[in-house]
Formats: sequence, structure tokens, C-alpha cells
Amino acid sequence: MFAITILGNNSAIPAFGRNPTAQVLQTQDDFFLIDCGEGTQLQMSKYKIRRSKINHIFISHMHGDHYFGLIGLLTSMSLLSRTQDLHLYGPSVLADILELQLKAAKTTLSYRVHFHKLDKEGVIAETSKIRVESFRVKHRIDCFGFLFREIRNPRSINVERAKAYEIPSAYYEQLQQGKDYVTKKGTIIPNEEVTSPAQKARSYAYCADTIYDESLAEKVKGVDLIYHEATYLKEHHKRAAERFHSTTIQAAAIARLADVNKLLIGHFSSKYEVLDEFLKEAQEVFENTELALEGACFRIG
Amino acid sequence: MFAITILGNNSAIPAFGRNPTAQVLQTQDDFFLIDCGEGTQLQMSKYKIRRSKINHIFISHMHGDHYFGLIGLLTSMSLLSRTQDLHLYGPSVLADILELQLKAAKTTLSYRVHFHKLDKEGVIAETSKIRVESFRVKHRIDCFGFLFREIRNPRSINVERAKAYEIPSAYYEQLQQGKDYVTKKGTIIPNEEVTSPAQKARSYAYCADTIYDESLAEKVKGVDLIYHEATYLKEHHKRAAERFHSTTIQAAAIARLADVNKLLIGHFSSKYEVLDEFLKEAQEVFENTELALEGACFRIG
Repeated sequence: MFAITILGNNSAIPAFGRNPTAQVLQTQDDFFLIDCGEGTQLQMSKYKIRRSKINHIFISHMHGDHYFGLIGLLTSMSLLSRTQDLHLYGPSVLADILELQLKAAKTTLSYRVHFHKLDKEGVIAETSKIRVESFRVKHRIDCFGFLFREIRNPRSINVERAKAYEIPSAYYEQLQQGKDYVTKKGTIIPNEEVTSPAQKARSYAYCADTIYDESLAEKVKGVDLIYHEATYLKEHHKRAAERFHSTTIQAAAIARLADVNKLLIGHFSSKYEVLDEFLKEAQEVFENTELALEGACFRIG
Repeated sequence: MFAITILGNNSAIPAFGRNPTAQVLQTQDDFFLIDCGEGTQLQMSKYKIRRSKINHIFISHMHGDHYFGLIGLLTSMSLLSRTQDLHLYGPSVLADILELQLKAAKTTLSYRVHFHKLDKEGVIAETSKIRVESFRVKHRIDCFGFLFREIRNPRSINVERAKAYEIPSAYYEQLQQGKDYVTKKGTIIPNEEVTSPAQKARSYAYCADTIYDESLAEKVKGVDLIYHEATYLKEHHKRAAERFHSTTIQAAAIARLADVNKLLIGHFSSKYEVLDEFLKEAQEVFENTELALEGACFRIG
């Protein structure tokens, strides 16, 4: 399981029933919440994403349409008596704001929040299965994208065959690393007999809010799925540049340059009611594009 | 026009499609927003309350379900290029939080916010038609209720008759105060000839979040409409008291003691999916009770 669910796809002002930015990356063991605009907890209820499953939250930057829903979500988790630790990644001022809000309500959360200040590029989180890197994007204020990549062992075990050779499961991790097995009688079982090459590690790049910037392509080179904002249609490229946002064809150009498999576009401006043209324009430059529609789930691999 | 529209009626955690607290009092000239839980701006869109109409916002206390939607609303007003001044009433720490949030986004609002610190009882706002008083209620943290009362001149003009006597409209305000009119020829037109006693000033009391407190009844004595929270059914009175909230029959008892015309109950706990029992229990103590259902509009007079 490696899938992105879209909870909000609109820019700045909520409009036409569209909500501000929030997405969930769901993997076998973990749910990662990426940005958290106002109403995210309501969208989670609507799309059956359980609040209790979220252990990592990433906030790309301090524009409200990317974090105004966070304090409500954190408070609700506490009202629901959460005890599990939560890891929060964002600009340091975010911690100050949350602290002030909790203090004003005389509230102590029922669980521990580990706040990880987001101020440079590199690996910011790692679970047993996923590594998360932050990368800078160019926006009006400091802003980061996030690259999620599976951590894979080089080999996959054929459990049936490993059992036939009576290899103890305690040795499986070494098999995954490519080691041969030696039986008690000294017989060598070659690794290839009981394993096969592992599947490619899956990857997702969330590029947050950004002006068109070709240097971004290098940072997300070859990912399976990229989310790149497309706030405006191509005719409004001047406005896009002025506001440090991108157009449909700019998002598609980055996907093409980065040689990714699939492109998701979102963060649509509130000036557009109908989104068909967004898809059409982007697909002219990069065919495997989809709209980040709310409630849609995109599986990788 | 003197009407309350309910935008949210749930306590703490949004549940069963119910939103946190927010209400709008609509009068002939003004819209007053009372509390502003997360998602209020979305609820305003849903129920056709135009953001631009709101010039006064009252925040009762610093629990998140009463103000987490405020920063999103203020930001959206700015993105929509509002220029009209806005008056905001709330605990002083609210101003600190908003300031920090705006600073983090490097945002300057397109309009001026007059922040009025809420720290004592008394008149806090007055338009040409409405006077607003704050009053303390008993909750876990500092909390205020708001009493809205029409400002009425003692007399209403019968415009047709005033015209028949050729009284200039510049004199109408004095007619409303009960003065007679003297014509150029010196004839006295008695006030009663062209006016009648004005209708009673209409009033609405919003009692915010409160434990059962009989002294509250004095503060809202005789209002037309009272909103009193009923977070719990009567069987959960212990929990209500522990959390500084009220039950159905406690809300109804206050309405009765205060001798009001009608009672609205809301702020329902997320533990209840169905609300029928709330109405039934309250009506056993105070018959003219209604549930503060989202989208419902209650007109007075």
C-alpha cells in the first residue's frame, strides 16, 4: 500500500465546495498527513481517514490555507484521549502559535508532540519503511516540499521456498540483504534459490506552493508520482509569477523535466469554478496528469 | 429584521456532520457574528451569509471550538479585498494569536481591525440600532455571553399622516422622541396625531458555554430569545458540572427563571448522534424551546 488521498485542493479562499490543501499518504504501516488547511479534520471524517492513524504531520509553510486546520485536529486528537506520540514538522513559528493557542485554552494535550523544526533540506523523518526528505521550493515565504520514498531491502523472500529449505525466520532479514544460507549440515543454499530482486522503492514528491522553477525538477527526479500546484490556467501566467504560483503547463513542464511517471495538479484558484481546462492544458504537455480531486485516492505500484 | 442563523451547534469535536459553534444575528443594517469555530466561513457560504456583510465579530472565550475559524475568515476577507473596518471583540490573547499568525504569513490585512478587549461586563458595542452588552458566565476559563438589544425611539411615525400635515422629514427624529410639531402658522400638531408607541425593543441573549448558574437568569431577564448551551442530556449532569457545561433541563430552568419568550439550545456533545431527546427533555421544563439546528433561522418579532 502506497497511496495518496486528497482532502483539499483549493488555494487561499475555500470556494465551490473545495477545501484548502491537505493530503494523506497511506502506507502499509503509517499515515502521513501533508498540510492541514481549515476543515481538514472534517474532510478526514468524510473520507474515512481515522485521526488516530496519523503519527506524522508535515506543514510546508505558514500560509493559512496550509495549516489553519492543524490546531483543531490536534485538539480533537486530545479530546479523543490519544496517547500515541505525534511527530510534527514545520517552520518554528508554528510551534509558537500552537503553544499560545493551547495556553489560552489552558489545555494540555493528552499525548506528546515532537516538534521538528523545518529549516533545511535533507532527511527529516524515517520509519522502518519510509524515508522523508524536505526540499526547498520558491514561494513568497519560506516553503518546503516533501519527498517520501520507500526503504526497500535489495531482495524479496519467497517464503514458501525458504520454508521448504527449513530456513528459520530469524534469518529472513539476512536473506533480504542477499546473503546465502548455510544449513546445519554445511550445505549452502544460494540466495537466488529463495529470493528474487525486490520491487523498486516507490516514491511521492509533494511540491507545495511554488513559482515555476526548473531547478525543482532535479530534486524530484524520477519519482513515481509528483504533486505540483497549478493555481492558474496558462493564460494567467503573469499573475501566477507575481504571486509565486504556477500554471497548468508549468506544472506539466516540471513533471516532464523530472521524468516522473505521473503528475497530480491542485491548489486551484478560487476564480475557477470548473476544472476541466486545467486537465486539458496540463495533458498537452505531460499526458499522464490527473486532477487532485477531493476524495480521490491515487495508488502507486 | 432581527434574526439568528445557526452556523454550528456542536461542542468540541466536530461530529455527525455538525460543526463547532457560530451564529449570525442579522438586523436591518448589520450582521453580527457570534463565535467562529473551525469551518465557519464554509458554513457561511453554505447558508448564503455574505462575508462582506459582517462588521462585528464577538468571541466568547478561548476554547478552540469557538474561535479556530476566525483567522481563516479574516484572511479570506482580505483576499477578497475588503476595505471596510471590522470590529472584533474577544479576550486580549486572541489579538496576540492573530498577530503572530499574520506575521508568520507576512500578511497585512486589506482592512482595519479594531480589536476590543473583552474583560468586563457592560456595553461593548453600539450601532445606530443595536446595543451590545457583555456579561460573565461561569466556565473553565474566562467566558462572556452577549446581550443584543434594539435601540428604539419611544414613538413610531405614521409617515402618511405626517406628510398630510406637511411635516418636513428633517423633523421626524423629534417626532420619534415624542415632540409635537408647530406649523409656520403657529398651529400645534400633537405628537399622537402622527405617531404611535414604538414596538418593544427586541433582544437576544447568547450565553456561550456555562455551567448551570442561576445568577445568569438575572442578567438576561425578559429577553425575547435566549441561547443557552445544553451540551448533555439530563442523565449526564455530573459530567456536565465537571466540565463546566449544562444539561437540557438546566438550560430550560434558566430560560424559565429569566422569564424569556423562547429558548434555543445547542453545543451538543459529540457523544450524541440523534438530538430528539434534547428537545423533549428541555420542553418538559420550558415548552417554547427549539434546537439550534444548523442552517435554521429564528426570527424575533
